[in-house]
Amino acid sequence: MHVGFIGLGNMGNGMAVNLLTAGHAVTAYNRSPAKVDALAQQGATPARTVAEACQGDVAQTMLADDGAVEQVTLGPDGIVASLPPGGTHVSSSTISVALARRLCSVHAEAGQSFVSAPVFGRPEAAAAAKLFVVAAGPPAVLDAVAPIFDAIGQRTFVVSEQPHAANLVKLSGNFLLATVIESLGEAMTLVEKAGVDPVAYVDILTSTLFDAPAYKTYGGLIARKSFEPAGFAAALGLKDVRLALQAAEELTVPLPLGSLLRDRFLTLLADGGGQLDWSAIASLARRDAGLGG
Amino acid sequence: MHVGFIGLGNMGNGMAVNLLTAGHAVTAYNRSPAKVDALAQQGATPARTVAEACQGDVAQTMLADDGAVEQVTLGPDGIVASLPPGGTHVSSSTISVALARRLCSVHAEAGQSFVSAPVFGRPEAAAAAKLFVVAAGPPAVLDAVAPIFDAIGQRTFVVSEQPHAANLVKLSGNFLLATVIESLGEAMTLVEKAGVDPVAYVDILTSTLFDAPAYKTYGGLIARKSFEPAGFAAALGLKDVRLALQAAEELTVPLPLGSLLRDRFLTLLADGGGQLDWSAIASLARRDAGLGG
Amino acid sequence: MHVGFIGLGNMGNGMAVNLLTAGHAVTAYNRSPAKVDALAQQGATPARTVAEACQGDVAQTMLADDGAVEQVTLGPDGIVASLPPGGTHVSSSTISVALARRLCSVHAEAGQSFVSAPVFGRPEAAAAAKLFVVAAGPPAVLDAVAPIFDAIGQRTFVVSEQPHAANLVKLSGNFLLATVIESLGEAMTLVEKAGVDPVAYVDILTSTLFDAPAYKTYGGLIARKSFEPAGFAAALGLKDVRLALQAAEELTVPLPLGSLLRDRFLTLLADGGGQLDWSAIASLARRDAGLGG
Amino acid sequence: MHVGFIGLGNMGNGMAVNLLTAGHAVTAYNRSPAKVDALAQQGATPARTVAEACQGDVAQTMLADDGAVEQVTLGPDGIVASLPPGGTHVSSSTISVALARRLCSVHAEAGQSFVSAPVFGRPEAAAAAKLFVVAAGPPAVLDAVAPIFDAIGQRTFVVSEQPHAANLVKLSGNFLLATVIESLGEAMTLVEKAGVDPVAYVDILTSTLFDAPAYKTYGGLIARKSFEPAGFAAALGLKDVRLALQAAEELTVPLPLGSLLRDRFLTLLADGGGQLDWSAIASLARRDAGLGG
Repeated sequence: MHVGFIGLGNMGNGMAVNLLTAGHAVTAYNRSPAKVDALAQQGATPARTVAEACQGDVAQTMLADDGAVEQVTLGPDGIVASLPPGGTHVSSSTISVALARRLCSVHAEAGQSFVSAPVFGRPEAAAAAKLFVVAAGPPAVLDAVAPIFDAIGQRTFVVSEQPHAANLVKLSGNFLLATVIESLGEAMTLVEKAGVDPVAYVDILTSTLFDAPAYKTYGGLIARKSFEPAGFAAALGLKDVRLALQAAEELTVPLPLGSLLRDRFLTLLADGGGQLDWSAIASLARRDAGLGG
Repeated sequence: MHVGFIGLGNMGNGMAVNLLTAGHAVTAYNRSPAKVDALAQQGATPARTVAEACQGDVAQTMLADDGAVEQVTLGPDGIVASLPPGGTHVSSSTISVALARRLCSVHAEAGQSFVSAPVFGRPEAAAAAKLFVVAAGPPAVLDAVAPIFDAIGQRTFVVSEQPHAANLVKLSGNFLLATVIESLGEAMTLVEKAGVDPVAYVDILTSTLFDAPAYKTYGGLIARKSFEPAGFAAALGLKDVRLALQAAEELTVPLPLGSLLRDRFLTLLADGGGQLDWSAIASLARRDAGLGG
Repeated sequence: MHVGFIGLGNMGNGMAVNLLTAGHAVTAYNRSPAKVDALAQQGATPARTVAEACQGDVAQTMLADDGAVEQVTLGPDGIVASLPPGGTHVSSSTISVALARRLCSVHAEAGQSFVSAPVFGRPEAAAAAKLFVVAAGPPAVLDAVAPIFDAIGQRTFVVSEQPHAANLVKLSGNFLLATVIESLGEAMTLVEKAGVDPVAYVDILTSTLFDAPAYKTYGGLIARKSFEPAGFAAALGLKDVRLALQAAEELTVPLPLGSLLRDRFLTLLADGGGQLDWSAIASLARRDAGLGG
Repeated sequence: MHVGFIGLGNMGNGMAVNLLTAGHAVTAYNRSPAKVDALAQQGATPARTVAEACQGDVAQTMLADDGAVEQVTLGPDGIVASLPPGGTHVSSSTISVALARRLCSVHAEAGQSFVSAPVFGRPEAAAAAKLFVVAAGPPAVLDAVAPIFDAIGQRTFVVSEQPHAANLVKLSGNFLLATVIESLGEAMTLVEKAGVDPVAYVDILTSTLFDAPAYKTYGGLIARKSFEPAGFAAALGLKDVRLALQAAEELTVPLPLGSLLRDRFLTLLADGGGQLDWSAIASLARRDAGLGG
């Protein structure tokens, strides 16, 4: 397929490379052009504007947040203005449910299709084409762009005909990860205050009931108090929890754990910790137990 | 070694069989004698009283709760009264930190040793000698009883010289499992209200970020609303969360997640659900979102 | 002064009458004109458009929510477009901090002044000129419009030179009232389940520690389960708690009680109770205790 | 009546004086005898043991906590052992529901009566015979001891025939006061971070919606950060919230506000603040908002 790929960050670059590897024609755009040039070395066609990246069948976006996606999609000479009728916007960014609904509607008015396809996986998985793709949209459109998902991921999960449902699933995944962090923060504080070594404790947990990457990764970071540099910043953690709560409010769903997490992140940010790794909310359980944060 | 084994429930019976298999001499006691007779067929010496089971080096207990352990240990003709000086009580039950402290002190006064060695694993793991043993106590005593741990488990974690620390680690494990249940309950309600199939959602989670038995087991139960018969009853879940909160209060550790879980279990019990599986607290998130529990 | 009064609801009508009584020239506008005609009987000049009500020194608004205030202020032929340079917009509605900031900035660009002056008090107090006015804005502007506050209220509290601070104080008042409701809901459920009569219990509370109108009003409604018709609807309660939480998030202030209240209101709305009085969240404490809501 | 009064603290002394003033014969006991001697100057008969104070119709206790009441009532030569058959124990201390149940049962076995009559009011109210008495017990017994209540209080509320119900009402009152403190802590932090003066804010609140002593007292303490010396220590606040939660758990009543308060008090105690006034939990809202506690 002919794919215009917009957003060559840590995740997007690996995804675009894998599209090339799978034989797709990729026109690439990035706000900072150095990354575009690097990708051109690997066979991509460089685009100097968003509009230039919207000349094919598909425009795929992998950007930081709602603001970036709004600008690239709805701005002058953006995707909606530039993609041919019948074209498809594949949105892989972690964005709000509300924005996904809005983009779906705007693209439809322009005679274009919109699908949400956020991914689970870290940059290494993106580079290795091992992402998990959570896709939602009209079945015929998803079928048409399936080769893209095959190129970037190890498996695709189709969750709904409504694109925004995929964004909600993605947000719920980050919500679940944040609860893992909070629960580890509380449990590790409890046993530490009874004299149990936190590193040994995490070893027990991850050897027994919780043999899962999330517990290993975050248990290790918390035990070592290793919150810098951030793998995923607390400010972004707050943003994703907020988006989950907003989506939940639109659906009239109370999320008491989400409320607790939101308060934790706000407390961390008020303490100046917004740039720390989001697992640093675990330090608040320690501080509240008199262990000094 | 010569081990008096007290408590032949689903867990204890498998543990006692494995002690026999490993070549230990086992004298077995159970409140209901039928299980003792069955074990005698496999080589155990039957005991008709607790005192008869306390004639060897070690008495190991695997009982339901604080009340049962108190009665067997401190009652007339109980373990303290019957075990020879120098003998060791290996307590594998999930009991309170406070009771563990008390038993440690009472046994010391009687010239006996006390170690806590609760286990992680379900009855199948107990039968297969695949338990994980969390042990705490004086190093020399733990060394002496290590053959018992080797016989029943696949790995032993020594966490402290203070026996009660092992009980706290065990309670913290159940606290973490309960948070998994609550977080799944909230996340699954959220995506279900957006039209995502809960079974498919659990498949996504456990194929990606949460490839761990706890998420598979409880995700499946919640998606199928399969809360009867209980694998672990909600009333017991409340008990363990309460014990964790009490231990935390003694250590002056706030556990906001623990507070939230306690309120959920109380709500479920007030609704008559005490005999349901503890994963039924997830139905409260559904009910509060207007999905009918 | 010459005041254009916009919004003749239960509160606004009483306020406008008192402006007339105090000798001010009032030009009145309301979306539904019948109320304008009624007020004209009492001496007001009727306005058929917002613009007609913006010909004097001051435009005062008393409207339902952010949406209404935005439309009247920023819409075509709205206050900003119609009020002469040097004129002042006195905003008495309960609106968000964010909107107050925005209106302040837009009016400044148009060479106009903006002050926030929300009020505490029910319709009877508005009719009796017994409101409490919480005012914020530039001191010289507040001095200039002080006669308006004197006409409608029994006392004016100036809280800041920044208009939005007054809106925050107003929102915080509703937050505090909602915590009174929630705390009464929990306490009354507790004693009721022990056999104490709720009406007698409220009598004890309000005769002793809590001799305040809020406890009498809401304690009585809860004891009698009298949630219809709503004095203040639960959907509006959720809105105000949400606005308080949003303002708090902008200031990086966690409000755990606010989070709890938000979850309660969402639960009530999910159960179809949005049109009930906001004190109906107390019925959730009863329901969660197995008393049937 | 002939009343043995046990416990001459700040509250008890005033109550005993008023019994004398009303013409009752009072035999007084206190752990520290100096207070007994002082009261003897006002007409009381001094007792050197609890037993000596139990020779009349009624023994009334006003002690610090469960431990003190247990010792005085159930200890050797305590009230149960010393009060004549047919005598009545009037318990005015703030004790647990569980202890009230137990004392009721033990006295009944001894052929004695037990009524709970905790009071609302501070030491000044006790001295002025202006207490509010919350009484529960068998109607005939309450009638018989009514002259005592008339002597110490301005009004008596009978809430149940079960004595422990009165203790629950008393605990619920402290729970409600603690929620007032927490809500003020959050609201005052919010407006302070927006630049509103806390003292002025409390003035607004208590002049308008919250014209009640609890808001004036605690609002003032919080605004001035005046937490020492404690009027009521945080450690006692935690105790009363814990007793309320325990009583609620026995009744299967979730109290989410109670859970939040318990976590706040634990956090304060972990920070070394157990001896501060219980209103110091408000400083945690400030700290969590980055204002430095």
